[in-house]
Amino acid sequence: MSILVVGSVAFDTIETPHHGRADEVLGGSASYFAVAASYFAPVKLVAVIGEDFPTRERDFLASRNIDLSGLTVAPGRTFRWTGRYHEDMNVRDTLDLQLNVFSDFSPVLPDGFRDAPFVFLANINPGLQGGVLDQLAGPPKMIACDTISHWIEGARSELLALLKRVDLFVINDEEARLVSGERNVVRAARKILDLGPKSLLIKRGEYGVLSFSPNSIFAVPAYPLEEVFDPTGAGDSFAGGFLGYLAQTNDLSEANLRKAIVYGSVVASFVVEDFSLRRLHTLTRDDIERRYRQFVSLTEF
Amino acid sequence: MSILVVGSVAFDTIETPHHGRADEVLGGSASYFAVAASYFAPVKLVAVIGEDFPTRERDFLASRNIDLSGLTVAPGRTFRWTGRYHEDMNVRDTLDLQLNVFSDFSPVLPDGFRDAPFVFLANINPGLQGGVLDQLAGPPKMIACDTISHWIEGARSELLALLKRVDLFVINDEEARLVSGERNVVRAARKILDLGPKSLLIKRGEYGVLSFSPNSIFAVPAYPLEEVFDPTGAGDSFAGGFLGYLAQTNDLSEANLRKAIVYGSVVASFVVEDFSLRRLHTLTRDDIERRYRQFVSLTEF
Repeated sequence: MSILVVGSVAFDTIETPHHGRADEVLGGSASYFAVAASYFAPVKLVAVIGEDFPTRERDFLASRNIDLSGLTVAPGRTFRWTGRYHEDMNVRDTLDLQLNVFSDFSPVLPDGFRDAPFVFLANINPGLQGGVLDQLAGPPKMIACDTISHWIEGARSELLALLKRVDLFVINDEEARLVSGERNVVRAARKILDLGPKSLLIKRGEYGVLSFSPNSIFAVPAYPLEEVFDPTGAGDSFAGGFLGYLAQTNDLSEANLRKAIVYGSVVASFVVEDFSLRRLHTLTRDDIERRYRQFVSLTEF
Repeated sequence: MSILVVGSVAFDTIETPHHGRADEVLGGSASYFAVAASYFAPVKLVAVIGEDFPTRERDFLASRNIDLSGLTVAPGRTFRWTGRYHEDMNVRDTLDLQLNVFSDFSPVLPDGFRDAPFVFLANINPGLQGGVLDQLAGPPKMIACDTISHWIEGARSELLALLKRVDLFVINDEEARLVSGERNVVRAARKILDLGPKSLLIKRGEYGVLSFSPNSIFAVPAYPLEEVFDPTGAGDSFAGGFLGYLAQTNDLSEANLRKAIVYGSVVASFVVEDFSLRRLHTLTRDDIERRYRQFVSLTEF
């Protein structure tokens, strides 16, 4: 089954404390999600790029079985973000942000995209995320969305309206606190489920993921890595692996959701091993299966 | 099989951001460890208390099948600690510390304690921890030890000497960084294993536990709780449940070590549900088994 993703495609400049820097490398929530999901299912991408977007990167996305007919080229430059990671790589500062063509992004779904059974609304303005749902042909099997603190604080009513329309909300622990006003993660999750989503995935970076649904909690650690080069995109890659596996298996049982969370964690664990999406240039599905089995060994008792 | 524990018995005064405070309640590393371990195996306690230690608390410890013949009463007052937890309960400040009788503590093992098959050296000066090992009748099945930043920074050479003599080192993630000089937890663990211990347990508070041995890594999340009243003693209770289960089962296989880590996590998850050791006044082994099964549901995929 196919997956529709709407989000950003960007160029990132990244500074790290121990692994140097990368300048103007492919980034953006939709890029990470799409490539991660592409290991499992066909992906339809809706995003905007500028006239400066190189053929090389477009070809890379196309080579991953990603349908680019919703990738609009607008006059101007592609979205750019510059960030610097702290010694504690869970913390980063934004040094520069140039929205460029992204500032006028108003996603329009091509006809062939409107009936995608799986939909991921990557981080953009929640009003625009809602506008994507308005364009769908009918209710898909699953709508998932992400957001960031910027929208939780600045577009709260739009976000709350959106949450009533989604099946799954994917955020990190700090965002969960901000949405709910609760410091304790379990109470925060309960409050968020009351806002509409049927389930909630809370990403905790190097500490793993907590999944909440009305009758079940699932906790899984992150795969322990000796080197984290660049955590950028880990959350979107997690979501891509997760929804990709669900779309491939077309099974929304609790047991399969849990396997999907582990697949998402596995893909994210590879992504952070190099800057940008570089690790995914060589990663194979066999590599994913191998690390999935290591994940089982890591956690079973 | 029995467990010897050497450490502190104290009175704690604890301030929390949302659950009020508790004044002069039973605390200390050896108290938490001993009571937690007592659910699984007989415990022999070596510690010092002052003349002010109430019969009520002594009776509680004795009621838990803890051999108190190594609990010395010294002239003066019992060790006292006052701490305040932050909004983020992983962080606390020490407001007051009165070592009192603990300042001259030099543990002496009663004869019947020297051949205990399981030994836990709770947090005290690493020189004194080594002195305990000198008093053992022969090599036990397992020696485990804990420490804190104070000794890692202030008694490093004594600690390094001790680490060559222990099977298992139990510390938190910040202490692991301090011992190893490595920020990354996997690299930190590898460096620490090179210092002597056969295995290493890294406690990460609400994020669970990582276990490292030369050929295996085990990661387990913490049990998600809606209310954490008082995290004091969680680490020692974890160690108590862990070593208690090992002593009860007398099985040091990797599979059983993993089960023991989950039992330790379960006991710790109860301890933090109330101040001091209060929750353990009513906790039953059945409660532990029930939550162990919930832990399986929480983590299986």
